[in-house]
Amino acid sequence: MEFLTGVREKKTLDIGQIAQGDYEGRSVKINGSVHNIRDMGEVAFVILRKADGLVQCVYEEGKTDFDRKILKEEAAVEVTGKVALEPRAPHGFEIHIEAVKVLSEPDQVLPLAIHKYKMQASLEARLEMRPVSLRNVRERAKFRIQEGIVRGFRDFLHGQGFTEIHTPKIVARGAEGGSNVFRLDYFNKKAELAQSPQFYKQTMVGVFDRVFEVAPVFRAEKHNTARHLNEYMGLDLEMGYIDGFEDVMAMETGFLQYAMGLLEGEYKRELQMLDVTLPEVGKIPVVRFDRAKELAAEKYGRKIKNPYDLEPEEELLIGRYFKEEYGSDFVFVTHYPSKKRPFYAMDDPADDRFTLSFDLLFRGLEVTTGGQRIHDYREILAKMEKRHMEPEDMEAYLMIFKYGMPPHGGLGIGLERLTMKLLDEQNVREATLFARDVNRLEP
Amino acid sequence: MEFLTGVREKKTLDIGQIAQGDYEGRSVKINGSVHNIRDMGEVAFVILRKADGLVQCVYEEGKTDFDRKILKEEAAVEVTGKVALEPRAPHGFEIHIEAVKVLSEPDQVLPLAIHKYKMQASLEARLEMRPVSLRNVRERAKFRIQEGIVRGFRDFLHGQGFTEIHTPKIVARGAEGGSNVFRLDYFNKKAELAQSPQFYKQTMVGVFDRVFEVAPVFRAEKHNTARHLNEYMGLDLEMGYIDGFEDVMAMETGFLQYAMGLLEGEYKRELQMLDVTLPEVGKIPVVRFDRAKELAAEKYGRKIKNPYDLEPEEELLIGRYFKEEYGSDFVFVTHYPSKKRPFYAMDDPADDRFTLSFDLLFRGLEVTTGGQRIHDYREILAKMEKRHMEPEDMEAYLMIFKYGMPPHGGLGIGLERLTMKLLDEQNVREATLFARDVNRLEP
Repeated sequence: MEFLTGVREKKTLDIGQIAQGDYEGRSVKINGSVHNIRDMGEVAFVILRKADGLVQCVYEEGKTDFDRKILKEEAAVEVTGKVALEPRAPHGFEIHIEAVKVLSEPDQVLPLAIHKYKMQASLEARLEMRPVSLRNVRERAKFRIQEGIVRGFRDFLHGQGFTEIHTPKIVARGAEGGSNVFRLDYFNKKAELAQSPQFYKQTMVGVFDRVFEVAPVFRAEKHNTARHLNEYMGLDLEMGYIDGFEDVMAMETGFLQYAMGLLEGEYKRELQMLDVTLPEVGKIPVVRFDRAKELAAEKYGRKIKNPYDLEPEEELLIGRYFKEEYGSDFVFVTHYPSKKRPFYAMDDPADDRFTLSFDLLFRGLEVTTGGQRIHDYREILAKMEKRHMEPEDMEAYLMIFKYGMPPHGGLGIGLERLTMKLLDEQNVREATLFARDVNRLEP
Repeated sequence: MEFLTGVREKKTLDIGQIAQGDYEGRSVKINGSVHNIRDMGEVAFVILRKADGLVQCVYEEGKTDFDRKILKEEAAVEVTGKVALEPRAPHGFEIHIEAVKVLSEPDQVLPLAIHKYKMQASLEARLEMRPVSLRNVRERAKFRIQEGIVRGFRDFLHGQGFTEIHTPKIVARGAEGGSNVFRLDYFNKKAELAQSPQFYKQTMVGVFDRVFEVAPVFRAEKHNTARHLNEYMGLDLEMGYIDGFEDVMAMETGFLQYAMGLLEGEYKRELQMLDVTLPEVGKIPVVRFDRAKELAAEKYGRKIKNPYDLEPEEELLIGRYFKEEYGSDFVFVTHYPSKKRPFYAMDDPADDRFTLSFDLLFRGLEVTTGGQRIHDYREILAKMEKRHMEPEDMEAYLMIFKYGMPPHGGLGIGLERLTMKLLDEQNVREATLFARDVNRLEP
């Protein structure tokens, strides 16, 4: 009988092993995709693309049986060759080719110059060709940074006593209500795609006190703007035994500090490649919604049109205000009007036209919505009645209040928006692998 | 201006802090939910439920201004009291109540005795009351173990050079095809919910060489069995530059070894609570599909009815065979018939009626499907033609082969099935927070 006993040792090395090891003058094997070939006559530079970077391989005519002319870009190959130190090459070394084994070959030549450091192609063209445009090293670096943000979220919260949960995305009804839902038939029952894990994460506070979830959320919004996606990743947390919604904002501040530290420490190469300057997150200013509107209106001479909502342009101005006045890329805007928040938001006992809630703006864009939730059964019933909602429609959710819930609050972060702003991109589609918008269902 | 500077220090302690610190005889604050009250006349034991366990608080009449008669089960409270060592109490200490602050109160008495160590309720009743039945400490412990499995998956793969990805769940068409798809209207286009991230994870191998995703998958299967869910969590990985599909099985073996080690190290309390014996994963036997069927048929005298598929009963017998003959709870079954595998599976060059693929059985249940994929453009076109599929329908996917893909393979693990078998549960609904099946869309 044959057995498997764990991960197999490979004869091929990766870049880190060669860069950090004692391989100078030694013959090694390395595999990768042929990213680019620069032909200089009798010498050619064959650049391999690997997960952890690019490797310069040098082909010299006559030094190997292999004819480099048969090598194609985007072929997958295994190169055998001698390591030589070369300060001008990526990672400080190059490989003098002794032999090449072709593992697979493309059928056609790429229609997009993905090997260029900065790809010359419109966003539209890059999205259309996404399966291959992502092979560009700067393009893919964005998603390594995105990975770092998500790792930071989980690792930080795990350290803070949160438990990770997985809640259903096919639901009987959405938490936010309204018309922005995708509907589907679920075995002859009406169902929707979850607009957020709101009800479930609150439910799980009754079980684990503190929970988080990283999962897709679905919004059938018809806006086709540079900041909207119809499917995006939500970084959600919910925490019990809070003294107020400030505890939730403090937790987010802690996460941002942790995540920026993780990026600084483990994603330096990608940050440099994309010229990213990490924001300061040592202290984040907090301002009331109505005061924020006034400050922006006063300083930039813009009239307040709608006292109950922030328009995108106002968000930009508030972001600008706190950058100019306090040097901060972030600002917590608190006490949103009750009218603009869902029924489960806790109203401010001092003035129930406002809620104990917040948004976090990052460089003028809302990247988080959060707040304290109602935890008292009678109170949530009363709020639903005021909004003409039917308690019978959400019995399972109301059960948690009926049988007792601690004071709690939470937040949801839009991963793509946070990534976009961190990378200083102008369109949220730059920060998602395969965008879903009103016009885009493929790739 | 007010600022937030990070996570706020709290005056309340958690169980770990008290159990490990030097708190004997000192007055502390601790919050939690009133899990149970045992009234002994002048003394009462108030058991608090916290994320990290239960805490015994002792109420003695006359020692505090507070009247314990107003305390209700499932109220959220903050207890102030003196720590005393007590070997019979959970975690070896109890708290002598000096004061109690009620943070919130339930409206009604729980209809389910969730404070019982082993809840006396049918699966049906527990699912119906899921939002509160999960508060039972053994019930919730299952999902801490599930968290450990997911952490193990990510941490292990991160260490193996994999990049985490997030791919869309609303897709133009499913990877597995067939009728088991949920359909929805996407802005007047026909769309489906992803049956797996198959096409996208293969696409991302061209970008990052090795990738993984932890995300929901959706299958509109009409089976209503103890092993089927219509929405479940897929642990997916895909890796390039493999020498064969054995590399993929080896990677899964490594993951299982890592995950069991993590559970052993960090989830000991939950394992003990649920009497879980972790399986041996040092070496996992590998057997061909046709040979496995023969072995089970010979030993247990069961006729082979369908040479092209494994029936659930056959899976059980094969599982039993390898447990009895080799002491293994796991077995990799390889070389599934081509007819039963999707078009992208690589056929065995030695005999193209079979594929270079595998399932992993755990205690007689399929918990993983994986294998090597076709990477050559012409080959995948030929396979599609043989199956009367239209290449025009999947241009974005075929693009990756047209422009070059390394040899690669991968797998998908069903998280709930793996959890279920690990916990020795008989129904997969035990291993999912909020089950979605043919009859169940709520809670």
